[in-house]
Amino acid sequence: MSFNSFGRMFRFTTWGESHGPALGVVIDGCPPGIVLRPEDIQTALDKRKPGTSKFVTQRKEPDEVKILSGVFEDERTDGPRTTGTPISLMIENTDQRSKDYSDIRDKYRPGHADFTYDAKYGFRDYRGGGRSSARETAARVAAGAVAEKVLAHVLGGAVWIRASMVQMGPDKIDRANFDWMEIEKNPFWCADAKAAERWAEKLDEARKNGSSYGAVIEVVASGVPAGLGAPVYGKLDADLASAMMSINAVKGVEIGAGMEAAALTGEENADEIRMKDGAPQFLSNKAGGILGGVSSGQDIVARFAVKPTSSILTPRKTITTKGEETTVQTKGRHDPCVGIRGVPVGAAMMALVLADHALLHRAQCG
Amino acid sequence: MSFNSFGRMFRFTTWGESHGPALGVVIDGCPPGIVLRPEDIQTALDKRKPGTSKFVTQRKEPDEVKILSGVFEDERTDGPRTTGTPISLMIENTDQRSKDYSDIRDKYRPGHADFTYDAKYGFRDYRGGGRSSARETAARVAAGAVAEKVLAHVLGGAVWIRASMVQMGPDKIDRANFDWMEIEKNPFWCADAKAAERWAEKLDEARKNGSSYGAVIEVVASGVPAGLGAPVYGKLDADLASAMMSINAVKGVEIGAGMEAAALTGEENADEIRMKDGAPQFLSNKAGGILGGVSSGQDIVARFAVKPTSSILTPRKTITTKGEETTVQTKGRHDPCVGIRGVPVGAAMMALVLADHALLHRAQCG
Amino acid sequence: MSFNSFGRMFRFTTWGESHGPALGVVIDGCPPGIVLRPEDIQTALDKRKPGTSKFVTQRKEPDEVKILSGVFEDERTDGPRTTGTPISLMIENTDQRSKDYSDIRDKYRPGHADFTYDAKYGFRDYRGGGRSSARETAARVAAGAVAEKVLAHVLGGAVWIRASMVQMGPDKIDRANFDWMEIEKNPFWCADAKAAERWAEKLDEARKNGSSYGAVIEVVASGVPAGLGAPVYGKLDADLASAMMSINAVKGVEIGAGMEAAALTGEENADEIRMKDGAPQFLSNKAGGILGGVSSGQDIVARFAVKPTSSILTPRKTITTKGEETTVQTKGRHDPCVGIRGVPVGAAMMALVLADHALLHRAQCG
Amino acid sequence: MSFNSFGRMFRFTTWGESHGPALGVVIDGCPPGIVLRPEDIQTALDKRKPGTSKFVTQRKEPDEVKILSGVFEDERTDGPRTTGTPISLMIENTDQRSKDYSDIRDKYRPGHADFTYDAKYGFRDYRGGGRSSARETAARVAAGAVAEKVLAHVLGGAVWIRASMVQMGPDKIDRANFDWMEIEKNPFWCADAKAAERWAEKLDEARKNGSSYGAVIEVVASGVPAGLGAPVYGKLDADLASAMMSINAVKGVEIGAGMEAAALTGEENADEIRMKDGAPQFLSNKAGGILGGVSSGQDIVARFAVKPTSSILTPRKTITTKGEETTVQTKGRHDPCVGIRGVPVGAAMMALVLADHALLHRAQCG
Repeated sequence: MSFNSFGRMFRFTTWGESHGPALGVVIDGCPPGIVLRPEDIQTALDKRKPGTSKFVTQRKEPDEVKILSGVFEDERTDGPRTTGTPISLMIENTDQRSKDYSDIRDKYRPGHADFTYDAKYGFRDYRGGGRSSARETAARVAAGAVAEKVLAHVLGGAVWIRASMVQMGPDKIDRANFDWMEIEKNPFWCADAKAAERWAEKLDEARKNGSSYGAVIEVVASGVPAGLGAPVYGKLDADLASAMMSINAVKGVEIGAGMEAAALTGEENADEIRMKDGAPQFLSNKAGGILGGVSSGQDIVARFAVKPTSSILTPRKTITTKGEETTVQTKGRHDPCVGIRGVPVGAAMMALVLADHALLHRAQCG
Repeated sequence: MSFNSFGRMFRFTTWGESHGPALGVVIDGCPPGIVLRPEDIQTALDKRKPGTSKFVTQRKEPDEVKILSGVFEDERTDGPRTTGTPISLMIENTDQRSKDYSDIRDKYRPGHADFTYDAKYGFRDYRGGGRSSARETAARVAAGAVAEKVLAHVLGGAVWIRASMVQMGPDKIDRANFDWMEIEKNPFWCADAKAAERWAEKLDEARKNGSSYGAVIEVVASGVPAGLGAPVYGKLDADLASAMMSINAVKGVEIGAGMEAAALTGEENADEIRMKDGAPQFLSNKAGGILGGVSSGQDIVARFAVKPTSSILTPRKTITTKGEETTVQTKGRHDPCVGIRGVPVGAAMMALVLADHALLHRAQCG
Repeated sequence: MSFNSFGRMFRFTTWGESHGPALGVVIDGCPPGIVLRPEDIQTALDKRKPGTSKFVTQRKEPDEVKILSGVFEDERTDGPRTTGTPISLMIENTDQRSKDYSDIRDKYRPGHADFTYDAKYGFRDYRGGGRSSARETAARVAAGAVAEKVLAHVLGGAVWIRASMVQMGPDKIDRANFDWMEIEKNPFWCADAKAAERWAEKLDEARKNGSSYGAVIEVVASGVPAGLGAPVYGKLDADLASAMMSINAVKGVEIGAGMEAAALTGEENADEIRMKDGAPQFLSNKAGGILGGVSSGQDIVARFAVKPTSSILTPRKTITTKGEETTVQTKGRHDPCVGIRGVPVGAAMMALVLADHALLHRAQCG
Repeated sequence: MSFNSFGRMFRFTTWGESHGPALGVVIDGCPPGIVLRPEDIQTALDKRKPGTSKFVTQRKEPDEVKILSGVFEDERTDGPRTTGTPISLMIENTDQRSKDYSDIRDKYRPGHADFTYDAKYGFRDYRGGGRSSARETAARVAAGAVAEKVLAHVLGGAVWIRASMVQMGPDKIDRANFDWMEIEKNPFWCADAKAAERWAEKLDEARKNGSSYGAVIEVVASGVPAGLGAPVYGKLDADLASAMMSINAVKGVEIGAGMEAAALTGEENADEIRMKDGAPQFLSNKAGGILGGVSSGQDIVARFAVKPTSSILTPRKTITTKGEETTVQTKGRHDPCVGIRGVPVGAAMMALVLADHALLHRAQCG
């Protein structure tokens, strides 16, 4: 019943604070025999690494992952392979500049967990937000890279998970321009090249003004076979909702048509079915690939909204830990759209949920 | 790791199919000494009971709950009280008219779990949707009534959970009209009396046309103290997301500003804090009462979108279980807006998540 | 994290008190497609049923099981089959004679949970011991019958679970007489016919004297393939230890050589291996079929000690709930060796643990 | 549902292999505000450290623990304190001499997990036994040190956990000599000084002969209040049984009278109760401090049997991984009685189970 674990059969536990010596994740339940090298994980980590463009935090962290357990290699294994025992991954924190934390130590930053952590625990590790820092998502991305390997191993290699930012502030992409080939070409992982251009301009301005924007990220898993998931509290969509909502700053999660489903009629919403080449073919995907909590074989489509960065350069009204009214404003590092770094995190969570359900399905249904 | 259980310390497991002899729920971890009478649960159940207006399914079920274990009364206990052992609640299914199920047995209804259950399990109990039926939510509502008692017991009686339908189809309520006193006065549990009037007219038409509408439900918990919840996967909002998304037909979940948070700037989104009467007071509630996964003492605000009923009287394209193209349409019972019955269910899920976190908080933080 | 649940993938939750209206169990995670009829379960239940000989409690309970959910039958399923959804089993309590409970209400019976339940919960359902009654084991036996079917389904039918009482009071069986064919022929489920004869005489005397005896039960599972179990806290033997120790009145659990292993040397204890007919063959089974928490393919051998019935007709010193010194003695029903009814319960727990691990193994290792 | 986690509210997950770069443990659910310094843990670890006498493995490991997360200190916290977030502890493996593993790579050592790991996972990290190595218990001892602090914090400092070896090979201690003051004075942690002398002589001989002895360890927790534990599968004794049986080489677990309870009559076994100084006093402790799965306020008494070390210098019959008959014998490091190092491990497991139940009790019963 851990607070810091996720998953049932493919279960991972993350640990670590923003400014502690390291952070990491322990994965339990991974099938044995899967080739797993540090570079498999490093490639994924590099995508969410701070400091890759002017739009993300300038904290300099190499985010180098170490595999501390759970893989074994000798002259007969053809590469390092998972052994079926816990995989412990660690990333050392290297950019912990000694700085003055007295401001965030003594004041509650609006939109941050400062106030609620104090209310719950009586005190907090205020350096960089401690456990509430988005640095924890590095552990998710590392675990997600392992999950992707598990999916390929269990489901036969066909699953393809991609994510795109589809809205920044009020500005949404044009679906007509959607092209997955674009996501690696702009700093927003955006599938609409034109939107990415607009956003670059707007975000640059926001950055200079010390303001910030929210974002919506869409994650799509293709190639997931029908049958993953379960009624009633083990629904695939319920697990995705929990997974996405657990990401820092997320305030909404949608599957398929999402909140817009409310505005549809039954005729518009039901995805009709035909046969094509001897297989069922849905004529639309309002369901986002999940019916009754179980995958239908269509693309799994999830979206989540990331609120605008709370750390902004404009002074905001707040109180001190002693209950005195004051103002607070961020100095130094400033991440004008945390949603950007949410893109690889969302993809990782999709992989983690699917890997879990792939194993669960194998357990129950063979 | 159950598929059909929810919660950590206050944990419940539901069972039962639409057309089996009964359905029920077993609650584990309930504190001892709480007065619990069948009528405490029955009152809640009666709110979601079928057949209460022309807008909900005409299935006639008394939905009478029996408490089979976990409470004890003698001349010294001042009423039946929970003993700390599992509370088993059962509701017998009485309206199982023998009818012809061959149509839904042999065809996959679009928008239903028929296709995915067959894909997962190889066959299915097709009578009324079996386990995927919304009848399962009766068990949630029953458990939710117990959860409300637990909240009062553990937190001192101050928590108040209310829910309102805030959108039907594309038609949203006017927030200026919002009045909690209205929700018991119209068949939509709608806090905007004028919206309820419009909806009645529209839904009557949809019902006659054999069509259906989606809905958005908002659930608000007032009086929750700061400090409930936890980082990182035990976040209060992550658990609410999972809870709400697990309700039948839900496609989106929002906390506070929800998906709209993406469109805000950091200045607009951060809830500033002042002191009032010696206590912290937030000047807005974009966060929906949760920061860093932990309650802030503000109202907890969650919303979820329910898709339009998939069972409509218009023929839809589909295939048979043997892969032949055909059409299917619903006959008989027809529920033009399943969102209506989602209102008490959403409130129940809020109570269940909060009761769980109230106990978890007590465990960790005393 | 339920208190009243057991298992990970094949997970069951029991509920019910000795003198409530009913008791039952909900099984989650059962594979679909397994033929399951009430009589499959009833046969197992009848073995532990009270009143079958003069050596077990004379409470008259038909212990008739009802399957309330999770199976479905139509003209195409060739019998009622599990659907993959929760299986709810219920047994109504029928022999709740109204009697005078004031004695056990006001006094703590030595060896019973009366004192500790009051200490924990503040009060207790004292009728027949409430939740601490051995009646709860009827739910285990019912679940165990389903587990046996799961084992046959998943592992191919080869697993055979048998149990024998191997000691009553200080009197142990003679291993030279061990014959599984005997267990159905005497009221002790004892594989040594001569021991059974001696025990009958001794126990008859104890019954008349109002005394009681403890017992040791041995459970053996044959045909379990190598590979079930897991390091480190998911060890097959750790789960068996928990399962057996959770049975009422059990004070010790052994695997293979058990406590006697301490007295052996390394040479004596290590089970040597040879090849036979192309397969590994162990030359002894000190390990009880489990090495490193994982099954070896040998017989799984577990034993547990059941303390003598605490309810005896001799007065024992105790205190009242108000802290006054007094004595207490049992009147009426008296079960001189509760270990007898522990035999089918032990077999059920073995089946339940193995079914769980069979599914877990399939999840992780395919 | 992790394989490598234990506990419900105070939950820990261990990771690491004998010859990997490090091993560790992540603790989740720890209350905040507890002073925790590395030396608090180091002191416990030093007790089980290899190489402390000629009777334990001569592997040289400093076993230096690092706290990587979950504690925070500034000028106001009066020492490093737990924050309520996951506590990650790591111990680096330093004595990984490069040696020839081909023998244990290609042969199955009797009594070891070699054969079963291969059967389960298809291959194994054979260096030092990989995950099945007793080195994993260092992580338990580290976690146990934190658990002891939690017990003091939650229960008020009164709990005292001690452990003694009470049998080596067939040679048991004399209870008349039992003196807790002795356990720190001999290499066996034995409370009977005379037995320790005899054992030293015998074990020296066994060591020289390349043989080994089993052992029984008794763990006693004093000062545990009545009320910890729960029916039915969350019983304190069931959790202790699982905890103790999960320790390497353990084959039996007893509570109170243990297996001997079977030989007693009801009159002998029931612990009678009197009043003393206004409080209930039990006149004996056959129950080992647990009734109905719940602590009674008496000493909690658990025992477990450790089989003799399987790695002995005498050749034993076995097979190769290819199924050829051969013999195997241990070379080099040899631990003639692994039970010795089991003493601090058993004490740690007792602390871990009690800490978990202390938090669980607080959750349910306030």
